[in-house]
Amino acid sequence: MSKKPNRAGRHFLQIPGPTPVPSRIERAMVRPIMDHRSQEFSDFSLRLLEELKVLFKTKHPVIMFPASGTGAWEAALTNTLSAGDKIVMFETGQFSMLWQVMAKRLGLNVEYIESDWRIGVDSSAIAERLKADKAHEIKAVAIVHNETATGCCSPVAEVRKALDDTGHPALLLVDTISSLACVDYQHDAWGVDVTVCGSQKGMMLPPGLSFTAVSPKALEVSKSAKLPKAFFSWDDMLGPNEKGFYPYTPAITLMYGLEEALKMLHEEGLDNVFARHAKLAAGVRAAVDAWGLENQCRDGKYYSNAVTSIRMPDGHSADAFRKLVLENFNMSLGAGLSKVADKVFRIGHLGDTNELTIIGALGGVEMGLDLAGVPHRAGGVDAAMAEFKKYAQVEQAKAA
Amino acid sequence: MSKKPNRAGRHFLQIPGPTPVPSRIERAMVRPIMDHRSQEFSDFSLRLLEELKVLFKTKHPVIMFPASGTGAWEAALTNTLSAGDKIVMFETGQFSMLWQVMAKRLGLNVEYIESDWRIGVDSSAIAERLKADKAHEIKAVAIVHNETATGCCSPVAEVRKALDDTGHPALLLVDTISSLACVDYQHDAWGVDVTVCGSQKGMMLPPGLSFTAVSPKALEVSKSAKLPKAFFSWDDMLGPNEKGFYPYTPAITLMYGLEEALKMLHEEGLDNVFARHAKLAAGVRAAVDAWGLENQCRDGKYYSNAVTSIRMPDGHSADAFRKLVLENFNMSLGAGLSKVADKVFRIGHLGDTNELTIIGALGGVEMGLDLAGVPHRAGGVDAAMAEFKKYAQVEQAKAA
Amino acid sequence: MSKKPNRAGRHFLQIPGPTPVPSRIERAMVRPIMDHRSQEFSDFSLRLLEELKVLFKTKHPVIMFPASGTGAWEAALTNTLSAGDKIVMFETGQFSMLWQVMAKRLGLNVEYIESDWRIGVDSSAIAERLKADKAHEIKAVAIVHNETATGCCSPVAEVRKALDDTGHPALLLVDTISSLACVDYQHDAWGVDVTVCGSQKGMMLPPGLSFTAVSPKALEVSKSAKLPKAFFSWDDMLGPNEKGFYPYTPAITLMYGLEEALKMLHEEGLDNVFARHAKLAAGVRAAVDAWGLENQCRDGKYYSNAVTSIRMPDGHSADAFRKLVLENFNMSLGAGLSKVADKVFRIGHLGDTNELTIIGALGGVEMGLDLAGVPHRAGGVDAAMAEFKKYAQVEQAKAA
Amino acid sequence: MSKKPNRAGRHFLQIPGPTPVPSRIERAMVRPIMDHRSQEFSDFSLRLLEELKVLFKTKHPVIMFPASGTGAWEAALTNTLSAGDKIVMFETGQFSMLWQVMAKRLGLNVEYIESDWRIGVDSSAIAERLKADKAHEIKAVAIVHNETATGCCSPVAEVRKALDDTGHPALLLVDTISSLACVDYQHDAWGVDVTVCGSQKGMMLPPGLSFTAVSPKALEVSKSAKLPKAFFSWDDMLGPNEKGFYPYTPAITLMYGLEEALKMLHEEGLDNVFARHAKLAAGVRAAVDAWGLENQCRDGKYYSNAVTSIRMPDGHSADAFRKLVLENFNMSLGAGLSKVADKVFRIGHLGDTNELTIIGALGGVEMGLDLAGVPHRAGGVDAAMAEFKKYAQVEQAKAA
Repeated sequence: MSKKPNRAGRHFLQIPGPTPVPSRIERAMVRPIMDHRSQEFSDFSLRLLEELKVLFKTKHPVIMFPASGTGAWEAALTNTLSAGDKIVMFETGQFSMLWQVMAKRLGLNVEYIESDWRIGVDSSAIAERLKADKAHEIKAVAIVHNETATGCCSPVAEVRKALDDTGHPALLLVDTISSLACVDYQHDAWGVDVTVCGSQKGMMLPPGLSFTAVSPKALEVSKSAKLPKAFFSWDDMLGPNEKGFYPYTPAITLMYGLEEALKMLHEEGLDNVFARHAKLAAGVRAAVDAWGLENQCRDGKYYSNAVTSIRMPDGHSADAFRKLVLENFNMSLGAGLSKVADKVFRIGHLGDTNELTIIGALGGVEMGLDLAGVPHRAGGVDAAMAEFKKYAQVEQAKAA
Repeated sequence: MSKKPNRAGRHFLQIPGPTPVPSRIERAMVRPIMDHRSQEFSDFSLRLLEELKVLFKTKHPVIMFPASGTGAWEAALTNTLSAGDKIVMFETGQFSMLWQVMAKRLGLNVEYIESDWRIGVDSSAIAERLKADKAHEIKAVAIVHNETATGCCSPVAEVRKALDDTGHPALLLVDTISSLACVDYQHDAWGVDVTVCGSQKGMMLPPGLSFTAVSPKALEVSKSAKLPKAFFSWDDMLGPNEKGFYPYTPAITLMYGLEEALKMLHEEGLDNVFARHAKLAAGVRAAVDAWGLENQCRDGKYYSNAVTSIRMPDGHSADAFRKLVLENFNMSLGAGLSKVADKVFRIGHLGDTNELTIIGALGGVEMGLDLAGVPHRAGGVDAAMAEFKKYAQVEQAKAA
Repeated sequence: MSKKPNRAGRHFLQIPGPTPVPSRIERAMVRPIMDHRSQEFSDFSLRLLEELKVLFKTKHPVIMFPASGTGAWEAALTNTLSAGDKIVMFETGQFSMLWQVMAKRLGLNVEYIESDWRIGVDSSAIAERLKADKAHEIKAVAIVHNETATGCCSPVAEVRKALDDTGHPALLLVDTISSLACVDYQHDAWGVDVTVCGSQKGMMLPPGLSFTAVSPKALEVSKSAKLPKAFFSWDDMLGPNEKGFYPYTPAITLMYGLEEALKMLHEEGLDNVFARHAKLAAGVRAAVDAWGLENQCRDGKYYSNAVTSIRMPDGHSADAFRKLVLENFNMSLGAGLSKVADKVFRIGHLGDTNELTIIGALGGVEMGLDLAGVPHRAGGVDAAMAEFKKYAQVEQAKAA
Repeated sequence: MSKKPNRAGRHFLQIPGPTPVPSRIERAMVRPIMDHRSQEFSDFSLRLLEELKVLFKTKHPVIMFPASGTGAWEAALTNTLSAGDKIVMFETGQFSMLWQVMAKRLGLNVEYIESDWRIGVDSSAIAERLKADKAHEIKAVAIVHNETATGCCSPVAEVRKALDDTGHPALLLVDTISSLACVDYQHDAWGVDVTVCGSQKGMMLPPGLSFTAVSPKALEVSKSAKLPKAFFSWDDMLGPNEKGFYPYTPAITLMYGLEEALKMLHEEGLDNVFARHAKLAAGVRAAVDAWGLENQCRDGKYYSNAVTSIRMPDGHSADAFRKLVLENFNMSLGAGLSKVADKVFRIGHLGDTNELTIIGALGGVEMGLDLAGVPHRAGGVDAAMAEFKKYAQVEQAKAA
């Protein structure tokens, strides 16, 4: 007999996004609709477009589409490339996979560097391709900064270096959907041409909005890019954006939320936000180690501070485990996707979260492993607490 | 010296959309984010997709993109047509204009039947084109049901009849962004192939969601349509939709709102919703007549029950008038767009509204005309009240 | 057959309180509960207690009970008086009546000066009593500033003068439940000893909170007042209040709302708030005059800027009229209470409201009078608009 | 240097009330104000008054004051007793203490049975007093069911038995402010005459509303009770309540929340609610044991399932500890009050909460003990998890 899910108390939404929307942002969105052609809206909108730049660490425009991140992927390709253009992508997991499928559908010539879904982008593999491309046929390199499916984070600056070392003019396109406002990211300093993000992860908003930071070089290139586009045309946006307007009705309530999200991130300070994510991730990884389970990310160089993907021991179903945890402990864990379906489960530790929430989440995992009869050692929660105490001691010492 | 806008009390948002979000829907959206890959979400989503059909009066699928209506326009074209295909469109106003610009950008061969922005679609003009097209080169006819810029409503069934009378196989694409849930619309009975709508007008939601009803014929045609598409691919949606899922993160909070919107429309009853819009529009038109001002819609056949566009007497600026009304009476009126910029102002009377709100709005217009020195007769509000009283008497007689 | 109420669009809540809670305040209250013994709460609470003083125009403490205004009435009596003490009250209407009933129940010796519910306090009648009271047996004079039941406003400063002219030491107690933040009120300058208010009228909050401004003299007297009290003890409040705390759990969410309400009143400016109420009331009275109906307040000296009570012509039921208006036009009007039950209806024009809302409300009344067959002249709405235009012209001239 | 509190993520509000308001209830309260004299309100209110009875397990009226629980205490005394009446109370802690202070202030002759704040009511001590009172001078026995200050729960049925065994006619008054909807409570079956509750604990609402269940005997006695009362008069409430109305403006928004709270409690089922509280409390006590700390409640018979009060080892400040936990881990713990100020800290585990939240909270305590250098053993969180797993296994076995 199927058990009625346990629904008292706050649900622990520990998927790697959409992340829980903090109360401040929820409230900010319960605000009457504004005339999107008014001066009041224009003032509001110009402020947001300016403040968004800080998040991407760029001085150049950030474009906001009233569409989820997948839409911004499409825009990144159609605004910079033409049919048949060659683009190099690296297989980090489900999301790099979907992006390259999209690229192929749009008529691009994709070179997809295969890998095992257990590391981030191997910049040397990219470097090799670039070096070999004497004719500069490669028009763009597109990578996923933080692969949400595997919990592997890619060294963007290394990829930039590979481009620079070979003097290769290809554009660098980066998906930061699950990394922005979680781990450090520097659009300008790292020489990224197009950075794509979504609202529903580190930015703590509901899904429905995407952001694209665009370098001057990308803008220049966009003038001659031939792939058809309309809704996702950068050009159509950038014109009206100058006065705080949009070519079609913007997602006003999400923009209300964005204003509050930016305020929250600013109050905490971006560096503190990154440090918090690093601390929480360290706690989760300490728990995984203590349990004797295996991190899907097999090389510490690539550990993600936003999400950890955990391999289920052979013969055990990750999906059955997640179901048991949901029914018994009112927590949603992330599913394994595609190649790793049923083989991993994921713990999101990104967005508006903190130590005690993560301890509760790890407690749910630890109890669930036991109830599901999954071989593991006890002590995961204790290990995470030990980690968090270390951080607290350092912070106390600093404050003293 | 510029006057500080008067901001006490409820703002009268009388633009023709986004419309005021009713409290019930606002509340429905302040709900914690759900795991979009869970059974709970799937159940919720399947229910919505089913109930949406009632609104379009269709038995066939309705597709929901996490993007504003403009995105659904693009999807309607890219999923049914191939580069160079011929499409006939009719100039009803700004929105028919933008749609045909998009069609051209996407590489279609657009025949745009020009008109004066003062009527809806002239079905005889369409019929003529179809009759002339013996070779059936025309692949689609695309029209705007309710032209938001002018307050002209088009006779969709007549256009269908024109297709039927000539036995023409072209698809019929209709934009109902500002008409659905305001005036009667029958996707199946009228033989429409693609109906496009947005969330932010008659559906009373914030902007950010679009809806597309698709006929079996359109689905069939979509299999061979060659225009590139990815984010807006119907196919990618329809597969996962069968189980209540989506190819990328859906706009969850707007879906929470949609559930409540559908509940509200169902509670009132669609026929009552249409009757209410008819009554409110009659009141507004009575006021315009009483003032001696001119309706932008010059033929009563095409009057819109969702929005009325009013021509400003020569020598008077509609925008200055709107500014005066905003500053003095805390009301936003719709601006004239493009060809009629500064020449008309628009009163939205669609979505979650009622007699007293419209009386307040008309009062603001009448006082504003006076303050702005615009030549007009008094008595607009009185005329609207007379109209509303007639309706009330009829309703009372029925209830007796 | 009873008609199903018409519920589309925003309900017009035109009762004289509780008044509609503005969106900003609604949002402010959707905030997680705070530990009411924390430093954070103390800081928050001290700020509120300070800012409240501005509203009462006092430099002395304002006490906040988590109870509706009736509770603050009780506190005003039990903290200043002892069993058998003589108190003079004036019959302005239902609320003066209820207050004197309470005083009697609590064992006070009430002298209730009768009147006809059609004027505010007649200060000469009070003066007469005071002059006659050579022995100073009268311990307090208690009056209702704005009688919500009749729309009559009392001249508080005149009553003060009557006390001063006779050198009478009686305390002056004033109920401002439906006047504070609507019409000017000066606790200190008018020498009021106890001012009682509630949250749900001019302060735009939900009901559940009451406020009491207390003069040094009242505080002094309270030390020897013998009526039993516990929950409503000022003393128990004032001690903890000094540090921002309360003797029992405070109504935290209403306090969140209060913070926002004070911010809104401050942004508009109290003088502008009063001017707005004066303007709206002038419009309503102009409509009543135009209809040829009679204001329950029979002397212009006492007109209330917060509520207007309108006498129904003989042979017509005010309650039937209100029901018709509710069912046809989705508006709640205030009922006649007690002595004037079914004989008057009331229009609230207080709190967060504006011209267009009042025009809509008056439109509903005018149409309702017609539908109900109540003898009246047309033109009420027109008269209100004429009034509002005059104000707008004056404001424009000032701004020029 | 003082450390800036850590404010990211959800605050853990683990005080024993006010408890976190669940999102469903927050949303329910963001609803426009209703006319409190309308038929719609009456219907709504009658439904609530009826459903409240289920919570108290009574067939008799439940009275709702728009005031916090302290007000209902006062009502319980003033509606049943006269000056000089003898009342027996038992010292369970801060709240029994405050209630007896109130009783004395109101002129009652209080016999306060002293105890050490480490047990609930000792029914044998009560029985002794009753037996000795041959003349039936004792008019009432008043006890606190769950002493929020100490985490001791009293055996109400035993006290009833003591009354029955001696055939004593005294009324039985019980404060259930922190127990109702947390642990089983049976107003009728246990022969309680007056049960007092507040909104902000097990009922999951913000503070500001109190509830009083009244037996027929108490109602009868109230007719001759002489203590003065007005705001808190039962009689004034019961009359209008019959038609769903109130003698003064009710706290409408809290009533909206109450409707949703009752719905939630009903959906979960009261027995499941009690079982959940029992489970969570067992987990917390297991943690306290594991840490080697001492429960303020020294006898297991009296353990509270709503709150646990934990004694700080000598030489350590509970308040400094709580401050450290707040600053480092964003959690509010309950303070020790009065006699146990700075000597205990309290963990609330009542209202809308669940295992993972409690694990997070215990994790914060465990880390805090370490950081504060408080002598203790590790393993508290582990012990709680072991407890929760046992419950989960039992539930799974049942479901199988």
